[in-house]
Amino acid sequence: MIKAVLFDVFGTLVDWRGSVSAGLAAFGAARGVQADWLGLTDAWRGAYKPAMDAVRRGDRPWASLDELHRDALAELAPRFGLALGAADLDELTGLWHRLTPWPDTVTGILALKKRFIVASLSNGHVALQVNLAKHTGIAWDMIFASDMFRHFKPDEEVYLGACRFLGLEPAEVMLAAAHNDDLAAARFFGLKTGFIRRPMEYGAPDGRAEPARAWDAVAGSVGELAASLEC
Amino acid sequence: MIKAVLFDVFGTLVDWRGSVSAGLAAFGAARGVQADWLGLTDAWRGAYKPAMDAVRRGDRPWASLDELHRDALAELAPRFGLALGAADLDELTGLWHRLTPWPDTVTGILALKKRFIVASLSNGHVALQVNLAKHTGIAWDMIFASDMFRHFKPDEEVYLGACRFLGLEPAEVMLAAAHNDDLAAARFFGLKTGFIRRPMEYGAPDGRAEPARAWDAVAGSVGELAASLEC
Repeated sequence: MIKAVLFDVFGTLVDWRGSVSAGLAAFGAARGVQADWLGLTDAWRGAYKPAMDAVRRGDRPWASLDELHRDALAELAPRFGLALGAADLDELTGLWHRLTPWPDTVTGILALKKRFIVASLSNGHVALQVNLAKHTGIAWDMIFASDMFRHFKPDEEVYLGACRFLGLEPAEVMLAAAHNDDLAAARFFGLKTGFIRRPMEYGAPDGRAEPARAWDAVAGSVGELAASLEC
Repeated sequence: MIKAVLFDVFGTLVDWRGSVSAGLAAFGAARGVQADWLGLTDAWRGAYKPAMDAVRRGDRPWASLDELHRDALAELAPRFGLALGAADLDELTGLWHRLTPWPDTVTGILALKKRFIVASLSNGHVALQVNLAKHTGIAWDMIFASDMFRHFKPDEEVYLGACRFLGLEPAEVMLAAAHNDDLAAARFFGLKTGFIRRPMEYGAPDGRAEPARAWDAVAGSVGELAASLEC
């Protein structure tokens, strides 16, 4: 019996690729600078897991996603022919606080909220997630953030920490995500799993947008997930 | 320049005395038991600070408000002529998850939310606060709870921990509360302060419902506070 549905955010609920590339292009246009904005967006996102892994291994001290994003952009910029100052890096790091939701996200969360606790379970930190929820209009019951656990997914502390805060058994909690690896970890720790197809997350449909296992639910949108859970 | 308004919850936003005493009375009526329900409610609330102090001094290990409430009720029940079993204690402890908001609470928070981050800063734990927000309809941007800090107000860790999670300086954050001692701590740690008069918190107007210092704002309701902050 599920009592709470937790959501991965980047890719699952918001279109980071479309939003960040558009924000970079607007930044460039305002300064008369051209670059491969989609390429930079993909490289920036690509730097995300290695950066978290460095924290996980203890090679760098705890850092928020803002700090990881900012450092990665500073490193990538010259490769894309960009000279970015400190204020530019701050401004562009803020793009990750203002991502556009997929069209079904806000209404789907509202539907689920009538019957379940709905909360984020994201590697974003509290400040980023609060800004993002205000920007998108997602009406969370609760935000669970990496800096509350000082761990990133797929560490156990994140999944089980959220269950503990809610006072629920893992089997009473579903993680909904567009990513098989996130769901695999959630299942390993005893949570229910809901796969949401986001074929456009990386710009064009690819195999990552298909469920790799028999997840407890598979849906094409948050609304479809809500319907399958009888909301 | 204020960017976030944090709220004390019990007494400031919800009528714990009216709600808990009504819940106790309904419990008694269903079982044909009579007792001094208002007296029990006041004694129960009175046990709250000493219980937190015991945790603060290290005389008892970390415990949620549910645990503190449950233990206090078990101790008080015989004094009020009540024989409560384990299931009764669980059920009645749950009354603190379903308190009635003051009439101006929900709309006042919505007004503030347009311009500020609005979040709770309560000694309640996450599970209690999530249930209470769903019950009342308070549309938080974020819930800050004692179990996120493993400290209770007025410990520094709670006030400054919330500012840190938001990535804000204390001077950018206002605590709004009906209690002078909570605001005194907030001011000591550098936050702005907003006093909300709740003359009926303890059943009848008394001196506790008046501001004891020149707080940054003084209001008769959440809506009045919002108006004074130009929302």
